Amino acid sequence: MDWQAITARIEAAVTPHIGTGKVADYIPALARIDPTKFGMAIVLGDGTMVTLGDSHEPFSIQSISKVFTLSLALKHYGENVWDRVGREPSGSAFNSIVQLENEKGIPRNPLINAGAIVVTDMLVARSGAQAFEAELLGRFHRLSGDDSIAVDEEVAESESATGSRNRALAHFMAAFGNMANPVEQSLGAYFRQCAVRMSCRQLARAALFLAFDGCDPINREQLVTRENCRRINAVMMSCGHYDNSGDFAYRIGLPGKSGVGGGILCIAPGHGAIAVWSPGLNASGTSMVGAIALEELVEATGWSVFV
Amino acid sequence: MDWQAITARIEAAVTPHIGTGKVADYIPALARIDPTKFGMAIVLGDGTMVTLGDSHEPFSIQSISKVFTLSLALKHYGENVWDRVGREPSGSAFNSIVQLENEKGIPRNPLINAGAIVVTDMLVARSGAQAFEAELLGRFHRLSGDDSIAVDEEVAESESATGSRNRALAHFMAAFGNMANPVEQSLGAYFRQCAVRMSCRQLARAALFLAFDGCDPINREQLVTRENCRRINAVMMSCGHYDNSGDFAYRIGLPGKSGVGGGILCIAPGHGAIAVWSPGLNASGTSMVGAIALEELVEATGWSVFV
Amino acid sequence: MDWQAITARIEAAVTPHIGTGKVADYIPALARIDPTKFGMAIVLGDGTMVTLGDSHEPFSIQSISKVFTLSLALKHYGENVWDRVGREPSGSAFNSIVQLENEKGIPRNPLINAGAIVVTDMLVARSGAQAFEAELLGRFHRLSGDDSIAVDEEVAESESATGSRNRALAHFMAAFGNMANPVEQSLGAYFRQCAVRMSCRQLARAALFLAFDGCDPINREQLVTRENCRRINAVMMSCGHYDNSGDFAYRIGLPGKSGVGGGILCIAPGHGAIAVWSPGLNASGTSMVGAIALEELVEATGWSVFV
Amino acid sequence: MDWQAITARIEAAVTPHIGTGKVADYIPALARIDPTKFGMAIVLGDGTMVTLGDSHEPFSIQSISKVFTLSLALKHYGENVWDRVGREPSGSAFNSIVQLENEKGIPRNPLINAGAIVVTDMLVARSGAQAFEAELLGRFHRLSGDDSIAVDEEVAESESATGSRNRALAHFMAAFGNMANPVEQSLGAYFRQCAVRMSCRQLARAALFLAFDGCDPINREQLVTRENCRRINAVMMSCGHYDNSGDFAYRIGLPGKSGVGGGILCIAPGHGAIAVWSPGLNASGTSMVGAIALEELVEATGWSVFV
Repeated sequence: MDWQAITARIEAAVTPHIGTGKVADYIPALARIDPTKFGMAIVLGDGTMVTLGDSHEPFSIQSISKVFTLSLALKHYGENVWDRVGREPSGSAFNSIVQLENEKGIPRNPLINAGAIVVTDMLVARSGAQAFEAELLGRFHRLSGDDSIAVDEEVAESESATGSRNRALAHFMAAFGNMANPVEQSLGAYFRQCAVRMSCRQLARAALFLAFDGCDPINREQLVTRENCRRINAVMMSCGHYDNSGDFAYRIGLPGKSGVGGGILCIAPGHGAIAVWSPGLNASGTSMVGAIALEELVEATGWSVFV
Repeated sequence: MDWQAITARIEAAVTPHIGTGKVADYIPALARIDPTKFGMAIVLGDGTMVTLGDSHEPFSIQSISKVFTLSLALKHYGENVWDRVGREPSGSAFNSIVQLENEKGIPRNPLINAGAIVVTDMLVARSGAQAFEAELLGRFHRLSGDDSIAVDEEVAESESATGSRNRALAHFMAAFGNMANPVEQSLGAYFRQCAVRMSCRQLARAALFLAFDGCDPINREQLVTRENCRRINAVMMSCGHYDNSGDFAYRIGLPGKSGVGGGILCIAPGHGAIAVWSPGLNASGTSMVGAIALEELVEATGWSVFV
Repeated sequence: MDWQAITARIEAAVTPHIGTGKVADYIPALARIDPTKFGMAIVLGDGTMVTLGDSHEPFSIQSISKVFTLSLALKHYGENVWDRVGREPSGSAFNSIVQLENEKGIPRNPLINAGAIVVTDMLVARSGAQAFEAELLGRFHRLSGDDSIAVDEEVAESESATGSRNRALAHFMAAFGNMANPVEQSLGAYFRQCAVRMSCRQLARAALFLAFDGCDPINREQLVTRENCRRINAVMMSCGHYDNSGDFAYRIGLPGKSGVGGGILCIAPGHGAIAVWSPGLNASGTSMVGAIALEELVEATGWSVFV
Repeated sequence: MDWQAITARIEAAVTPHIGTGKVADYIPALARIDPTKFGMAIVLGDGTMVTLGDSHEPFSIQSISKVFTLSLALKHYGENVWDRVGREPSGSAFNSIVQLENEKGIPRNPLINAGAIVVTDMLVARSGAQAFEAELLGRFHRLSGDDSIAVDEEVAESESATGSRNRALAHFMAAFGNMANPVEQSLGAYFRQCAVRMSCRQLARAALFLAFDGCDPINREQLVTRENCRRINAVMMSCGHYDNSGDFAYRIGLPGKSGVGGGILCIAPGHGAIAVWSPGLNASGTSMVGAIALEELVEATGWSVFV
């Protein structure tokens, strides 16, 4: 690959769009982010790191954390995870409650809010909120080689303060017996994981194992089984972008997960992991410029899984 | 690949399940199919054809036809297809009308009934019902090398006679201005394409172009652009199995499309096309034994796009 | 009652609002009605007829016909009517199809389109479309003493030509086995009954039996049983104005039924029947000025059933 | 009225059904009620009290409290009540959350849980939870002449302990800005009002003002305006029995409100107030035997508002 040409091509593609989209503004810490930020990091199996723009600047990973939490849950609970959450696309917005009523408190998949709350609830039930957070951050530290990755306390508090809709989801699932802990306990852990700050470099590095059968190709740690790795990617492909997942698969053709902080994580199986960040979102909460950058990358590399 | 070992492995996996699931019984021609039938055909890029069981026996392809109709529509209309149909998973059953009301007559994707009716309506509007059917069958004849592939007239008539729900979908879309022809005209063409009979060998062969960038690797015909090929596969991955699409991606990890006749078509990009047939269906209308066979194939070959 | 004072009061109340609301425009015959029309007729048990404005001008009764069709169905089928249609408010628009899917083809009540189509289908199954229409018109002729009351053929044709949504409802119910006749046959009868033209005087007179235990107080014809009369009024109160029924009960407090032609029929049990007409509609398809006139009438007479 | 004959008739009608239906069992205090209990009290405008069975035995009024809370809100807030809650039947179960999502946190009416929580929230915002409860109980004491009417503390605590679904509703509304107080504060007041214990005699007596233009005919206290009285009755008619309201209007034809404790309150405008109690419920949470008793009463007295 001629990475210099590829990054130049991506840069040319995104430049006219920098600043477009709507920055999340439901909490101050997100609302005040400079909308013209753009960063991207591509990590390959041999550790090569290709970067663009603000790739070292930490941002709030938000819902991208759901992928890592799911991988922990599959490690600890295996197929039992699916007793409490489905793996079908929801066809609706990230925080919809309608489906929960029709399907008796079982969320459609682990990458919408309700599903991620249930997955967090499992992990909190297993070892407590602190141990769960320690395990999650431990992975980030180990894989990214940076022990400073942490929860942004201001964001975590704001998430909780504005979290009425997530509270509604959690109490609703509790009404169907699908919460193992007191709602506030699991919600607290959920809000904190969403508030982790990482840079594109760190995020791509931390997810590299998902491109290589669950085994980090650099430090050789097997983080999930080969089978579960494949499955996590499948769930990301089907459900990673709420009611925009089909369009993302159509345009980009890689398993991915977006966050309202403007980050997108993508996995190119057998090739590498990509993290991109730009705060302006489309109507479904996916970074507009981030998606354009990924589209260009896929076009240039032929990494789509659908070729 | 040691195809002898692989087919033995698949045979061992499916044997205990032969006859399970529920055969479609809404029309006599489907209801009377022997539930213990099982056939499979894997076609590779060099034309190698690996088969199991009743791979040469024709069956009703039903909704698998939607993939071929979509490929014709993308060829003739390009991106304009998406003005009249979405590309998001529906999260609901194949014949649900609820989403149509909420989204003003625009079906979620071209692989549910409403969406395929709209796509057919486009093609009928372009050249008439007969020319559309001739083009579709012409492709089948050319690619499969068998001019006897045809519409099963008994099935087509039964589909129309029992088609109240599809009529409701079509009239509902007409109410929102999303039908270009009289409803019965487009429905007639739709019912006929669903009633085409093909064997696993023919079906896999006819779809081989989708595994090779839209170009049939044997006769070198470019049937859709490379870009549209990728996109068709993406839509199959997201939406190919109604409210079971996420589960199919999770278990099998290949773009696919099921039909209530018991057939499943799968694309392994860069490797080949697979057709499997066994009449017993799960609750979402996907062949139970067919899915097991595909799961085993993917396990044995490593063809999942998510590895 | 000082009817002179009451009519003066109503006139004063409606005058500032004449011409407000949106005239139905989905068919030409309705779209070209003068929006400033206003008529009202109050018929008492002794035959006294109090009128205002254009009370003798015929208009398209549209959905008001559903009340009379229901009374015929209850006469001929009794409680069996409720095997095929419910009697609960729908909480949604007049032509919504969502509820039909959730409740397996049984419409919520006989005063929404789907429900009235089913009721018509019953009556057509019993005696044929022509006999049904003859019975309905016969009642109108006999009670109003005017044999010229008839279906407006232009309107009936336009209804059919633009009836995609009603076709969708009918085919959808057929898919659940809830249509006894071919869809077009029952729909034809349905469209024709909606296209009957009557004046406020005729309409109020024809409905007088509903204010007096099912027995017309002038000609002594018992049109429905006392029990069914009470029940028809109950259904009108609960369901007579689509998703506006609660508001109508709140403001006016009388059983009523609106039509998109701008008519409203109201029953004041023990007192009389009222028909009002003014073409401008609110968002739920109820005549805006008509509702104001009724509100004032109820205020002046104390006829609300909730006092 | 020959009340002796009427009560005998009611008794004969209910006897074969005593014990039918399903007693609410989500909290112990309700689950342990003797299912064969039956009481009824009819209070007339002159203070005459006609009773049957266990008419003096206190029971948990549950959702019947919503009528009294609404009357307080209309007194204090007038038409502004309707800025935060609708007055349309919901067409769905008492605790459905689906409608709330579609209608942006505005509950359909004040007699479903979400609506009553909003109404309570208004009253708590006005004067605090304690003052609200004091005002509510004060009315009960004054009208029923019994100062011992109180909240059942065990029931109130159980309601709160099992109140996940109501918590979900409240947090969901908070997410749309439709809660003025912290969720737990208003929910606490809501749970307590549902836990008030009253007998049929007390309940009928306390609601007598609703049958007489808002003015208690015995002690002459005007509790709501004549207009608001009429409107409360209209809302009870349209919405008093969740997705069973249409059927109740059809069968009984009086404004009413049911509670899962097995009580039903009915208003016969101009005649009197009726309270009936029997713990076995139908699928929509209305007392089965209670409804039969009311049906018989209405048949015997001709009190239906639809005659």
